Amino acid sequence: MLTYIAGSGAMGCRFGYQLHQVGQEVILLDNWQDHIKAVQEHGLQIVGDEEVTVEIPMMLPTQATKEADLIILFTKAMQLPQMLQDIKQVIGENTKVLCLLNGLGHEEVIRQYVPEKNILMGVTVWTAGLQGPGKAILQGTGSVNLQSIDQSGVEKAKEIVAILNEANLNVTYDEDVVPSIWRKACVNGTMNSTCALLDCTIGEFFKSPEAVAVVKTIIHEFVEVGTAEGVELDEAAIVKYVMDTSVKAAHHYPSMHQDLVQNNRRTEIDFINGAVARKGNRLNIQTPYCQMITDLIHAKESVLNIK
Amino acid sequence: MLTYIAGSGAMGCRFGYQLHQVGQEVILLDNWQDHIKAVQEHGLQIVGDEEVTVEIPMMLPTQATKEADLIILFTKAMQLPQMLQDIKQVIGENTKVLCLLNGLGHEEVIRQYVPEKNILMGVTVWTAGLQGPGKAILQGTGSVNLQSIDQSGVEKAKEIVAILNEANLNVTYDEDVVPSIWRKACVNGTMNSTCALLDCTIGEFFKSPEAVAVVKTIIHEFVEVGTAEGVELDEAAIVKYVMDTSVKAAHHYPSMHQDLVQNNRRTEIDFINGAVARKGNRLNIQTPYCQMITDLIHAKESVLNIK
Repeated sequence: MLTYIAGSGAMGCRFGYQLHQVGQEVILLDNWQDHIKAVQEHGLQIVGDEEVTVEIPMMLPTQATKEADLIILFTKAMQLPQMLQDIKQVIGENTKVLCLLNGLGHEEVIRQYVPEKNILMGVTVWTAGLQGPGKAILQGTGSVNLQSIDQSGVEKAKEIVAILNEANLNVTYDEDVVPSIWRKACVNGTMNSTCALLDCTIGEFFKSPEAVAVVKTIIHEFVEVGTAEGVELDEAAIVKYVMDTSVKAAHHYPSMHQDLVQNNRRTEIDFINGAVARKGNRLNIQTPYCQMITDLIHAKESVLNIK
Repeated sequence: MLTYIAGSGAMGCRFGYQLHQVGQEVILLDNWQDHIKAVQEHGLQIVGDEEVTVEIPMMLPTQATKEADLIILFTKAMQLPQMLQDIKQVIGENTKVLCLLNGLGHEEVIRQYVPEKNILMGVTVWTAGLQGPGKAILQGTGSVNLQSIDQSGVEKAKEIVAILNEANLNVTYDEDVVPSIWRKACVNGTMNSTCALLDCTIGEFFKSPEAVAVVKTIIHEFVEVGTAEGVELDEAAIVKYVMDTSVKAAHHYPSMHQDLVQNNRRTEIDFINGAVARKGNRLNIQTPYCQMITDLIHAKESVLNIK
């Protein structure tokens, strides 16, 4: 089975590496030239829980030619349309496409390139880091939940679940994955934008009662909009999940902090809080907190001259 | 006429200096020991448009003993109750008290110490800076609008206007000063909290359309709450005033940026956006932008361990 990792940042490297280790054919795709060069010349270096260097093919998305059996999408949210455009030559009649991006609304983009029966939507709580080109830090464990968005794709999806589990990726076929995607979006929507804006760790942000009030209002907006879209969301359970996550991840800077503050890169805000604000707008549901934090993040991008 | 400047930071020094220069008896009050010591030992140093050093008495508020003819309140908003408590021994039957603090709601505090007939509420667009203890930077010009909150105090208030104008403070007796106080609060409520949070100048903040959207929504909340309180506010005119001010003050960091980012001091947020959120809450008017920015500023104070 040929698997492309479309977007081979930290998380893409983790999934590619774990599949490669159990004998799957894997090709890493990315647009970061230094990263490609490092992997091509010295292999992919893994540090953290284990230390090993592995030979995995890596190339630009546009250089991929062989039709894929599976594509795992792991780009930043705003890079998704370009990535799908760049790899459309390897998306065949039977190519399964698994989306593990953060945020909401990606299936609408993917549908433009992939027939519905081949689309798998998922969510993961695995983590990973990059120490530089060609070097991934993999620590701890995680899991994946995924679902075929079309009933006709379920059987094949379960075969993919089995293959991913051979690679110890701890995957569950989920009869209703959308609430989990929204729950993860609530984690990102309460921690990423706020810690990026306040330049702090998750634990530093969550320690004040005012921060917790902001968190709860943002979750309330997500739940109102999600519910109106027909997603079954338990607000109290999500609040508890977010609060528990804030304790476990207290010492971490969320990825949006890394993007905005550490690397002065564009953020994914439009696909997290911004997505909820847009949906709320369409559904005539007030989402002022999501709208304001989205605008403040864009204002900060502008302050930093990020295009 | 004996005038106390109650809170002799940059702005207090400007007003004290200008009154002193035309022969008025002025005593500066403040709690910053190094500042008092510098002025007592070396005089108050003025730099900027003119360079001069003047001898003006300065002491702790609690050390003031002689009954005041006029007290000009220029503390940070949260220091106002303590200041009034510390100087109550010099507030006599005929002592006029002029409030020039930023923010909203101060007259409710002042009423606890001063009879209504002696309270003057005002607003100023003068600016000033402190370069360190005992050294004020005074540049440009400004103006003051003030009003007696009780009709019986109007005549005496106009005498004070005349005295302040002898000191070139460009003061107008305003038959309806409250809209001007709210307009200034809109300037502070759109620039101070945002630039403090995003760590940027006024011009850097205002350059993105998303920032302007935030500004307009904050102004809308101020206007809705002010109007419900009976203040006559022209939303379009205030938006224009704020936008014009953002151009004139483009290269400045607002005072809340100085407090939060540069000096890690508590901010006045509760008396600007926080005041509007509290009023809105009482009046059953939604003020999510004011509430969220207030909470984010407090969360950042907590991140910085500011008590």
